[in-house]
Amino acid sequence: MKDKAYVLFEEQQLARGIDVNHVKQKLAELKIETPSWGYGDSGTRFKVFQKEGVPRNPFEKMEDAAVVHRLTGLAPTVAIHIPWDQVDDYSKLRSHAENLGLRIGAVNPNLFQADEYMLGSVTNSDSKIRRMATDHLLACVDIAKETGSKDVSLWFADGTNYPGQGDIRKRKGWMQEALQEMYRALDPDMRMLIEYKCFEPAFYHTDLADWGMAYNMALKLGEQAQVLVDTGHHLPGANIEHIVAYLLDEKRLGGFHFNSRKYADDDLIVGTVNPYELFLIFYQILQGSMDEDEGIRSGVDKIAYMLDQSHNIEQKIPAMIRSVLNVQTQYAKALLVDHEEVAAAQKNNDVLAAEHAVRRAFEFDVTPLLHAVREEQGLPVDPMEAYLNSRYTAEIAGRGKGGASW
Amino acid sequence: MKDKAYVLFEEQQLARGIDVNHVKQKLAELKIETPSWGYGDSGTRFKVFQKEGVPRNPFEKMEDAAVVHRLTGLAPTVAIHIPWDQVDDYSKLRSHAENLGLRIGAVNPNLFQADEYMLGSVTNSDSKIRRMATDHLLACVDIAKETGSKDVSLWFADGTNYPGQGDIRKRKGWMQEALQEMYRALDPDMRMLIEYKCFEPAFYHTDLADWGMAYNMALKLGEQAQVLVDTGHHLPGANIEHIVAYLLDEKRLGGFHFNSRKYADDDLIVGTVNPYELFLIFYQILQGSMDEDEGIRSGVDKIAYMLDQSHNIEQKIPAMIRSVLNVQTQYAKALLVDHEEVAAAQKNNDVLAAEHAVRRAFEFDVTPLLHAVREEQGLPVDPMEAYLNSRYTAEIAGRGKGGASW
Amino acid sequence: MKDKAYVLFEEQQLARGIDVNHVKQKLAELKIETPSWGYGDSGTRFKVFQKEGVPRNPFEKMEDAAVVHRLTGLAPTVAIHIPWDQVDDYSKLRSHAENLGLRIGAVNPNLFQADEYMLGSVTNSDSKIRRMATDHLLACVDIAKETGSKDVSLWFADGTNYPGQGDIRKRKGWMQEALQEMYRALDPDMRMLIEYKCFEPAFYHTDLADWGMAYNMALKLGEQAQVLVDTGHHLPGANIEHIVAYLLDEKRLGGFHFNSRKYADDDLIVGTVNPYELFLIFYQILQGSMDEDEGIRSGVDKIAYMLDQSHNIEQKIPAMIRSVLNVQTQYAKALLVDHEEVAAAQKNNDVLAAEHAVRRAFEFDVTPLLHAVREEQGLPVDPMEAYLNSRYTAEIAGRGKGGASW
Amino acid sequence: MKDKAYVLFEEQQLARGIDVNHVKQKLAELKIETPSWGYGDSGTRFKVFQKEGVPRNPFEKMEDAAVVHRLTGLAPTVAIHIPWDQVDDYSKLRSHAENLGLRIGAVNPNLFQADEYMLGSVTNSDSKIRRMATDHLLACVDIAKETGSKDVSLWFADGTNYPGQGDIRKRKGWMQEALQEMYRALDPDMRMLIEYKCFEPAFYHTDLADWGMAYNMALKLGEQAQVLVDTGHHLPGANIEHIVAYLLDEKRLGGFHFNSRKYADDDLIVGTVNPYELFLIFYQILQGSMDEDEGIRSGVDKIAYMLDQSHNIEQKIPAMIRSVLNVQTQYAKALLVDHEEVAAAQKNNDVLAAEHAVRRAFEFDVTPLLHAVREEQGLPVDPMEAYLNSRYTAEIAGRGKGGASW
Repeated sequence: MKDKAYVLFEEQQLARGIDVNHVKQKLAELKIETPSWGYGDSGTRFKVFQKEGVPRNPFEKMEDAAVVHRLTGLAPTVAIHIPWDQVDDYSKLRSHAENLGLRIGAVNPNLFQADEYMLGSVTNSDSKIRRMATDHLLACVDIAKETGSKDVSLWFADGTNYPGQGDIRKRKGWMQEALQEMYRALDPDMRMLIEYKCFEPAFYHTDLADWGMAYNMALKLGEQAQVLVDTGHHLPGANIEHIVAYLLDEKRLGGFHFNSRKYADDDLIVGTVNPYELFLIFYQILQGSMDEDEGIRSGVDKIAYMLDQSHNIEQKIPAMIRSVLNVQTQYAKALLVDHEEVAAAQKNNDVLAAEHAVRRAFEFDVTPLLHAVREEQGLPVDPMEAYLNSRYTAEIAGRGKGGASW
Repeated sequence: MKDKAYVLFEEQQLARGIDVNHVKQKLAELKIETPSWGYGDSGTRFKVFQKEGVPRNPFEKMEDAAVVHRLTGLAPTVAIHIPWDQVDDYSKLRSHAENLGLRIGAVNPNLFQADEYMLGSVTNSDSKIRRMATDHLLACVDIAKETGSKDVSLWFADGTNYPGQGDIRKRKGWMQEALQEMYRALDPDMRMLIEYKCFEPAFYHTDLADWGMAYNMALKLGEQAQVLVDTGHHLPGANIEHIVAYLLDEKRLGGFHFNSRKYADDDLIVGTVNPYELFLIFYQILQGSMDEDEGIRSGVDKIAYMLDQSHNIEQKIPAMIRSVLNVQTQYAKALLVDHEEVAAAQKNNDVLAAEHAVRRAFEFDVTPLLHAVREEQGLPVDPMEAYLNSRYTAEIAGRGKGGASW
Repeated sequence: MKDKAYVLFEEQQLARGIDVNHVKQKLAELKIETPSWGYGDSGTRFKVFQKEGVPRNPFEKMEDAAVVHRLTGLAPTVAIHIPWDQVDDYSKLRSHAENLGLRIGAVNPNLFQADEYMLGSVTNSDSKIRRMATDHLLACVDIAKETGSKDVSLWFADGTNYPGQGDIRKRKGWMQEALQEMYRALDPDMRMLIEYKCFEPAFYHTDLADWGMAYNMALKLGEQAQVLVDTGHHLPGANIEHIVAYLLDEKRLGGFHFNSRKYADDDLIVGTVNPYELFLIFYQILQGSMDEDEGIRSGVDKIAYMLDQSHNIEQKIPAMIRSVLNVQTQYAKALLVDHEEVAAAQKNNDVLAAEHAVRRAFEFDVTPLLHAVREEQGLPVDPMEAYLNSRYTAEIAGRGKGGASW
Repeated sequence: MKDKAYVLFEEQQLARGIDVNHVKQKLAELKIETPSWGYGDSGTRFKVFQKEGVPRNPFEKMEDAAVVHRLTGLAPTVAIHIPWDQVDDYSKLRSHAENLGLRIGAVNPNLFQADEYMLGSVTNSDSKIRRMATDHLLACVDIAKETGSKDVSLWFADGTNYPGQGDIRKRKGWMQEALQEMYRALDPDMRMLIEYKCFEPAFYHTDLADWGMAYNMALKLGEQAQVLVDTGHHLPGANIEHIVAYLLDEKRLGGFHFNSRKYADDDLIVGTVNPYELFLIFYQILQGSMDEDEGIRSGVDKIAYMLDQSHNIEQKIPAMIRSVLNVQTQYAKALLVDHEEVAAAQKNNDVLAAEHAVRRAFEFDVTPLLHAVREEQGLPVDPMEAYLNSRYTAEIAGRGKGGASW
């Protein structure tokens, strides 16, 4: 049946003027970085439920990540978190990854779990703690150099819980000082990705609270500083795809932390709460990439697609497989938008036709297309099924419970 | 200066027709229950910062709570959480509390930290887990009887993270079954307080998501079932005082878990984010108590005022002192509302005058009044200062770090 | 191509165990009521943009509605709003509708546009205004009887803008009095549908603010009182499908006002902002209807699906066609959920499989199915195209600008 | 009693180290601009209730504004909206204002009520409409020059209701083009104040959606471009005082549109929903002004405090008097913050003391202080009472109903 379905799909899209080969090529190029910490246990403040088979160290995390990539072809890089993934010899971790067919992705400094950081890391009023935090940033730049990573990805928990607790403007200055020092340590081909978040764990003010604050910081630092959009880090109602289009236009969209949320930073599996939003994000990016064809450099090719989720109740590896597949699905749908049709409707002030032209692409079932793409790449047509039928879960059961967590 | 200030305050209020003696009597009757877990360490999913001197067991928690009550006169009861406060012999815990001048308050069953409860406790699809959860509820009723508590306070983390994960309506039925069984175990003078929460730790649906679901459950159970309002458990913009007035009118307002929030269930110190909201809650309650004077039983006298906060970065005992004082402050202000003035403005359709009549009470500085009330009760005029000048912090330092936490 | 597509669709679904004939029968039974006011001009507080060809009176509204029904087969009834649709002789309006192949649907009393209602209609502190409002409710019951309508649909703008402006509990009592009087006037086969809304136009408290308040009112009134869910009337993050499942379980889900929102009560075309949410609502309803097959009366068959939107910038008739088609699309997708697959995954505690079983249905492209259904009913395969190719727009241009608005 | 109260207040503050004379001087300098349109009728999309005595033209609006200023001493300037306040000869309007003791404040171009602007004004895809809109901006610069205004205040309703409706990035470019053209027309001592809004009347994306977009635009234009913060234009939970501190630090805080909101852009009277938030905004500004004393130019002295409210149910002049008094009250409280105490607590990492130091200032009753300030300025001690006792309401009754509205 699959063949028939794909043949029909191709006919349909051809009739719409969509170049399916181009679509397949773009799909073949899609890369989604999985986070090492997503293979470990995580939870809410109420409870971390431990799972059997969770990796016990960074090397085992790479092994699990390699399974995800082997089955999906989508996840060739793995982000690491320091010190969660601290090892004595990063060249060994790098070799281990490379032997598994992976590369180390973004390096994520952790500045929220040392006791010293209770009232801030780079924005702490104590200069010794700021020094300690900045040194950790610099150490992470070194780790990136050792592991061959080009991106250092920054999320700060820094903020305050009460009015008056901290001097908002002084903290702003301290943040800038620390980032400037780190920025100078980057090699010319490295990037600093600056994440923002509206709240949690700080409940009054967060030093980098929204895209505007991250963007403004990037402006002050230089072109290697870019903004990282975590899809769960916005206030209710925020139009994320608008922010994406805006940053793209300013050439400051560095990448994403994908996940789903209904309420706050729920960190659920991407594409499960409002899949249309994910599609619309890709629609904006693909629209931006058309400028590129016209010779305008938008930086679309450098956007880092990364996951950042908390698999509190899910089996870790299946959760990751589902996640990269969900991203692939919505990306595939976005590739079916007929941009000329949209532009024509916009030009005619035909609101209904323009809306429909975008949403129509979302309504196609891309399963036949994705099956075909996977077959052509020698991948299992249904990576989840392939995983569940594999012996990997049984193999890792020997790790027992109590693996890595945060 | 204090005396002059109080004399002036009394004159001012007399001129407005406020009976200051009545106000003082109401203030003398105010009781705020502190939670045993608020004396221990807590945090966010990102980090629990450990403090020195945190109590190591339920007995030490009572000792800290006794300090709060001794200095403020406001906190004669302490809520307990089972199994966090599990002891071999509850009569000993009760005696310990009573020797310290305290009583055990509401008993809170914990149904979210056993591994079995990952996908639900009383709403788990596995009947054995539901049995286990219901048995815990029944055990808590027994503990309440042993400790002399009259309230069992129920918060369920139960819910789902994804569409389809659970059968919403079946879970609703299971919740009802469990609560009915527990309800039958109550003595006639005991109450079941049913809490609700919009989200967290469940991120798709929460079985008891809002006041309506808690209320409806209470209706089905009987008059001893009442609704518990946690001020941090609502969606953005919810008018909490409206819910309070509504439940009061239906005679189903059982009590509160007070705390402050700006974003989600931030669990900050009550009265620090939007103190006017706390004042307006008390305004509604006091307005309801006027019906009582007219012979209508509203149950205002039985409302349990309890704290439920997470002192992630604060010193625990001072945080609790500040919290009960903040509640006292807003309650005192609410006692200064001239209800006849409000009613007259309402009758005249004078929107501005009615609004002002309420807000004016909020703008009075009640410090002189509270000083006077404390002096009359033989309490320190400034309980926080008294605590900070005491040797208690030094005394408990010997407990070291790593005390009770959740 | 269409035929091939449908054949393939049928094969696919058969392979999944879906009974396509049953699906088609359910689709043939789907009815969506359009609102008379949706054919007129509307806008925001900033501007009402007038469109050419907007109907100038209730009779012309019926003519436009008939076009929508003729092309889609989905919209056989039209809700009316009184006094917007006030006519001298309702039997004439009824005949006019019936001659056009329509019936009059829910009657909607308007209690927010008379000067008297500035501070409330049925909750006004002035008993004369309450009388006037209640009389209007009674008049609408009479109109319903004259027009053959079985539902009177109640939305109240009543509320306050400031703390203290009104007596919340007295207003609650007045609301109940008015509705009780109206309830008594209903024939046994008539229903009162009670709508709720969190805010707007009242910005402090709204007398019927959430489903709990509407439901509690319905409980007090009797079984003919049911709750009406407007999908735009909730606070950010509210899980609407949970509310739907809950009300269904209590046999109090009377119907819907469908529309889309991203922020507040945006009243956009249904299915354009988060189509998955609409799908999930239908998933809950269809799951509820399975109880019915098991002999449990859930009242699913009586749920009134109605639109309530504000077409501020859209062409009115095309907006309505698009709206009913969007509802049909998501309903069709929900009919493809394999409930046994979901139940099995739930039973196995397989969170990922359960989530996927539901979402998979959403990802099918139902276009071939809907084309087939329309062909079988003798309807145009693409009703929007059929409309745009028709001469109706040109015909109504003669009405000019300045038609009915609110 | 007033005297005693003030003497006591002065003693209290002296004891805290607050220089009451400095406070009084700052209060004497406070200026709040009232909007001409706030004197007219306004409403929600559901209804505009007409009031008796509403001004019928811009000249009468100035007369009403003069009453507010005469009684409060706080409101010497009046913002105008073009074309709502269009007159043949702006020098006449200016003279009229000056004869009444007023000056014309910010000029507000209206780009949302012409039929052409349905799909955008400066971001319309039609270059002719963009030209028309830009010309209106230029005309408003001219009007500002004629009326002696130094600020042109820009709020754009521009945005889209649906994904795909418009090209987000092209619209961004068009916005910039129009503002650049207008910017070039400014005299060197004039400012362009750029407002932002998250939604309404656009319900999918708004071209200038948040402070970051307004700020980035200002950066591109030059130093005369500043950001205008409307307190009702943020998503739920936004920390407005953080944004204020941030813009202040970047020297781009141009001014405010004050109003209150609980839900969306409710446009209620400032200081009635969460008065503490207004206080905290002033706390940040005053903290910023301390830098100035240290020789750093923050631009605090140029911040334009303006009202922008919708008095849907209130008497217009009393609503405006109440509003300016509410601003004055919170400003007075913020002047009582002991910044050294806050800084010391921050330095000691004493979270509770820092929070309390800020909140303590909020809890003082500043009524005696404000009475004293008014007496010293020869103003009525209670401006609201003075107004209600005046004959002005009776005088303007002759205007009848149906005055200016929008």
